[in-house]
Amino acid sequence: MPAPIHVFDPPFNILRASHVVLDVTDLAASRKFYEDIVGLHVEDADSDTVYLRAVEEHQHHSLVLRKAAIAGCHRLGFRVASEDDLDKAGAFFAANGITYSFVARPFQGRTLQATDPFGFQLELCASMEKRPHLLRRFDLYKGCHPQRLDHFNVFAAELQDTIDFYARLGFRLTEYAEEDGDAGRIAAAWMHRKGNVHDLAFTNGKGPRLHHFAYWVPTAMNIVHLCDVMASSGYLANLERGPGRHGISNAFFLYVRDPDGHRLELYTCDYQTMDSDHEPLRWSLKDPRRQTLWGAPAPRSWFEQGSAFNEQAVREPLFVADVTIAD
Amino acid sequence: MPAPIHVFDPPFNILRASHVVLDVTDLAASRKFYEDIVGLHVEDADSDTVYLRAVEEHQHHSLVLRKAAIAGCHRLGFRVASEDDLDKAGAFFAANGITYSFVARPFQGRTLQATDPFGFQLELCASMEKRPHLLRRFDLYKGCHPQRLDHFNVFAAELQDTIDFYARLGFRLTEYAEEDGDAGRIAAAWMHRKGNVHDLAFTNGKGPRLHHFAYWVPTAMNIVHLCDVMASSGYLANLERGPGRHGISNAFFLYVRDPDGHRLELYTCDYQTMDSDHEPLRWSLKDPRRQTLWGAPAPRSWFEQGSAFNEQAVREPLFVADVTIAD
Amino acid sequence: MPAPIHVFDPPFNILRASHVVLDVTDLAASRKFYEDIVGLHVEDADSDTVYLRAVEEHQHHSLVLRKAAIAGCHRLGFRVASEDDLDKAGAFFAANGITYSFVARPFQGRTLQATDPFGFQLELCASMEKRPHLLRRFDLYKGCHPQRLDHFNVFAAELQDTIDFYARLGFRLTEYAEEDGDAGRIAAAWMHRKGNVHDLAFTNGKGPRLHHFAYWVPTAMNIVHLCDVMASSGYLANLERGPGRHGISNAFFLYVRDPDGHRLELYTCDYQTMDSDHEPLRWSLKDPRRQTLWGAPAPRSWFEQGSAFNEQAVREPLFVADVTIAD
Amino acid sequence: MPAPIHVFDPPFNILRASHVVLDVTDLAASRKFYEDIVGLHVEDADSDTVYLRAVEEHQHHSLVLRKAAIAGCHRLGFRVASEDDLDKAGAFFAANGITYSFVARPFQGRTLQATDPFGFQLELCASMEKRPHLLRRFDLYKGCHPQRLDHFNVFAAELQDTIDFYARLGFRLTEYAEEDGDAGRIAAAWMHRKGNVHDLAFTNGKGPRLHHFAYWVPTAMNIVHLCDVMASSGYLANLERGPGRHGISNAFFLYVRDPDGHRLELYTCDYQTMDSDHEPLRWSLKDPRRQTLWGAPAPRSWFEQGSAFNEQAVREPLFVADVTIAD
Repeated sequence: MPAPIHVFDPPFNILRASHVVLDVTDLAASRKFYEDIVGLHVEDADSDTVYLRAVEEHQHHSLVLRKAAIAGCHRLGFRVASEDDLDKAGAFFAANGITYSFVARPFQGRTLQATDPFGFQLELCASMEKRPHLLRRFDLYKGCHPQRLDHFNVFAAELQDTIDFYARLGFRLTEYAEEDGDAGRIAAAWMHRKGNVHDLAFTNGKGPRLHHFAYWVPTAMNIVHLCDVMASSGYLANLERGPGRHGISNAFFLYVRDPDGHRLELYTCDYQTMDSDHEPLRWSLKDPRRQTLWGAPAPRSWFEQGSAFNEQAVREPLFVADVTIAD
Repeated sequence: MPAPIHVFDPPFNILRASHVVLDVTDLAASRKFYEDIVGLHVEDADSDTVYLRAVEEHQHHSLVLRKAAIAGCHRLGFRVASEDDLDKAGAFFAANGITYSFVARPFQGRTLQATDPFGFQLELCASMEKRPHLLRRFDLYKGCHPQRLDHFNVFAAELQDTIDFYARLGFRLTEYAEEDGDAGRIAAAWMHRKGNVHDLAFTNGKGPRLHHFAYWVPTAMNIVHLCDVMASSGYLANLERGPGRHGISNAFFLYVRDPDGHRLELYTCDYQTMDSDHEPLRWSLKDPRRQTLWGAPAPRSWFEQGSAFNEQAVREPLFVADVTIAD
Repeated sequence: MPAPIHVFDPPFNILRASHVVLDVTDLAASRKFYEDIVGLHVEDADSDTVYLRAVEEHQHHSLVLRKAAIAGCHRLGFRVASEDDLDKAGAFFAANGITYSFVARPFQGRTLQATDPFGFQLELCASMEKRPHLLRRFDLYKGCHPQRLDHFNVFAAELQDTIDFYARLGFRLTEYAEEDGDAGRIAAAWMHRKGNVHDLAFTNGKGPRLHHFAYWVPTAMNIVHLCDVMASSGYLANLERGPGRHGISNAFFLYVRDPDGHRLELYTCDYQTMDSDHEPLRWSLKDPRRQTLWGAPAPRSWFEQGSAFNEQAVREPLFVADVTIAD
Repeated sequence: MPAPIHVFDPPFNILRASHVVLDVTDLAASRKFYEDIVGLHVEDADSDTVYLRAVEEHQHHSLVLRKAAIAGCHRLGFRVASEDDLDKAGAFFAANGITYSFVARPFQGRTLQATDPFGFQLELCASMEKRPHLLRRFDLYKGCHPQRLDHFNVFAAELQDTIDFYARLGFRLTEYAEEDGDAGRIAAAWMHRKGNVHDLAFTNGKGPRLHHFAYWVPTAMNIVHLCDVMASSGYLANLERGPGRHGISNAFFLYVRDPDGHRLELYTCDYQTMDSDHEPLRWSLKDPRRQTLWGAPAPRSWFEQGSAFNEQAVREPLFVADVTIAD
């Protein structure tokens, strides 16, 4: 099936992946994981919510943990270019039969919440309260020195339709994995707004679910150190996959699971994609270097487990792709 | 004097710094330096010209070396978003009394050449011949593994007017160094188009001249290795400054001089700047951590030497800033 | 069974693991692997033999490749402190019923060859021709920058007897893996002469065979780069295990297979062990962090495959240890 | 003047540099520096003394801070192989007119204290209380991840006599810097016991004084991070020299000053030296790559300042070497 064509002039201007809101069942355990082990900075916290950010981020938060009875993903947050873009987004959603509402969210400017036609719960804002950034406060660096939220990756049950929808919103395809043959179906796609490999990626599977969210770290050494720290502080079982080099995106990666099983990627080393003539890179679904340049397959959990959105039913995917699993 | 306000809707859309064209007096010596020591890849070469690129770059070249009797900088190249932007650029230049011409340049699409009001010789194109990128051809990596051209830094004799001009073109201020006090003058400015710290930076001084061009490398380790290689292969005197951490931009840096004295920066570790509400960071000109976070001043040559543009006279700066020099 | 007690005053003084002699079936293919990919330096070569060394080594060679019809390990070479120690070694071997001979080996001083009671083919010398070392010739660094040969690891069919024998020779136990329970048997042992974790390690299994030999590299980044290079230059299948962190020895490691299947470890980050009161560290055979601190089990090939010695029959081990294998 | 010949069979067996005892004027400030910034671990502390060690060290302490009215170096500690070696040391000192005494030191076994003929205050012990090492407790790693004490470097007023004395004790010369010409004098010497470049180095200058003590860190990245941390936490002025690569020893280094001005080196990347036929490397005093492979001279403070021993007068050196200083 066809890779989507880039829309240079979308109906509203999304700048980038901005923040994620997760429901967690043990707020203290989750805070400990993200603050002490991963090394995010707690900017605000109360008995129900913890707000965290990474050292490069001026904005108040890029990760929000909400105490909840059931773990899940509540919202994927995106930054738009202006207040005007929020209104344009509302108009677009209305014209396309998508319910939305403007809500007040702590520390954020006017916020539009909507659920896309496939069940992904989004929120958009043009501004957030600012905090002095911590980039040069190296004395406060902790954990693996996470620098900024980079992207989300979701399981989509209707993969082609989903990427076509986001292409209409101006998300641009950079890489994709496809079955071989003339009728080969796209099984995964990486799409960006901000000029690197992705802000939002899609994996064929039971959906809608969040596969992972990712923070960018400075070097592979930070990732190696996180492995060492997790292995020596009771988080051995939370190391799910890696470290390794993705063929796709060229990123050096590590996947870890938080206390509720939400998946976090630490990653570094991708590339720029803002040229108008940038062409998407196709990978055969059967090329082992796609998953890991070094050839090691991912564990079954990585293909199958994800975080459901807290107000959505999960559907079986339209097809099952034949991927290589380490069993 | 005031920091310029960002123009979100410029007269034409420059995407990023794209390539630099240098005049060199010994083509073989320069090629050896950039290919064997720095580690760029020669894409094409003839008796008069060598075209090089870095591993991430799809485009045919980001550095062009031209054999010449006198060393100098010939052109700073920028990528625009579309062919239409080239025409818009022409219209803007015409309306502002700036001579321009469309020329044919090997391996480039339609190319507009112009000299700005301050003597900086530019060329713009919307496309360039593509080559398979080498990002995943790690077996071909050489030298310090340069990944992409990142930015230019120029000496401007009329600093405030120059940054105001480029602000009109949509370059956005991210950091600047200013004299203290109410009448403090801006002495250096970093401006971007592509969403990181800069595509083009300006330093007060005899101008117009190129201070340096910079390639992004993956980690500080690559820069340390380049120091070691240069010290052990006859390029000890070409190591001018660093390695170190800039306060400005947070970059880990090294400055080296090529056989003609053209200055190249290898750098890594900056940050994203694409949010609409991103605010420029002011540094006092007297803060030693501005130049180097670790406090070591730069050598005199770094403040005084640069590459003249090959068709321009060099003018004294309007004022002399009081900077800290290691003598 | 008991861990051996350190003998501070052995019958002769072995300084360290010095060199390994391998039989290879395609000399050109093996040379290409070790020289171009791994990055060892060829010091001498003829139609039958290639001599290589790492950048730190003054001695002529630490790896000798011999053209042969059948791949195998020919000799494990150790350096002794003096010519006198060679004679003491001869006397010790004679007194213990071990046949030995003094032979002339190219580029080596007087060389004693012997096969120990378990079939490990050794050679000892007190001197080797010297070459200017390349440690500061960073311009000649290649591959993963191997710095020095560090150790050998062998499969021993009679593990306890073998480590008891080498303990008599002054090899000192630093770490060992043991079955749990009062009758728990030692299944692997790491022993040193030179003051770090090991010069010679022993793994229970079909023996005598060489499990691997190891070169020390400066940092984990060199190992990551080797993975990238092998994956992009046709050696994907030669990446056997890692990179990862051993619990044992604390080393960051990678195991690769050469064109004949000989196993090479690239490793870094161990520790010093020369204090007289240094105590061996015991690991339970069932602790997953022993193999890999991060918990990932090794592949079956890593437990089962090794290089036979070219003049020895291979025996089944006295017992089969219950280890965790990734299948 | 002649480089000393190695004594393979010294009168007693020193294993390695073990610990240093410093007098500091503000115990809390010094503890904060070494614990929070550098990242050593406090093993014990009372109102007058703080004991610290690095992650690899089993022994109770490698740095002792003592509250004192005047800052100074109290003792350089060395580990000997056995209790018997302590008695042999006493006998040697007695035979050579050197006063010594056996003293009780907290957490140490029987300890011999002596002052050598040149005023260097030493203490020797064969054992120290053990603590579980922290090498695999990556969750406790702090600062620049110091791993073990490596060496001392002292200013000697009578350089040739001092190195000749330590050569008699079995310290082996690995590198030295010498004036050019037939009558060239040795101006600096690096000598080891443990099999790497040095346990004790000597620099011509006002002595006896401690120039620095050094901890080994895993990689250059740890050193870069320490620079960043010190620059952003009020220790900018304590960054004295580096980071850089020494020509001598090949080490990647950083020199920092503690709150009393005691100099600490963080260093990595040296090499092995235990072969019997290892030959010392001579450097011309005028080779700029000796100090720093990359050519940058050291600041004046680095050549002139050091820590006096607390019971010794400081003497002018016998000669003044002509070294290159950055002024």
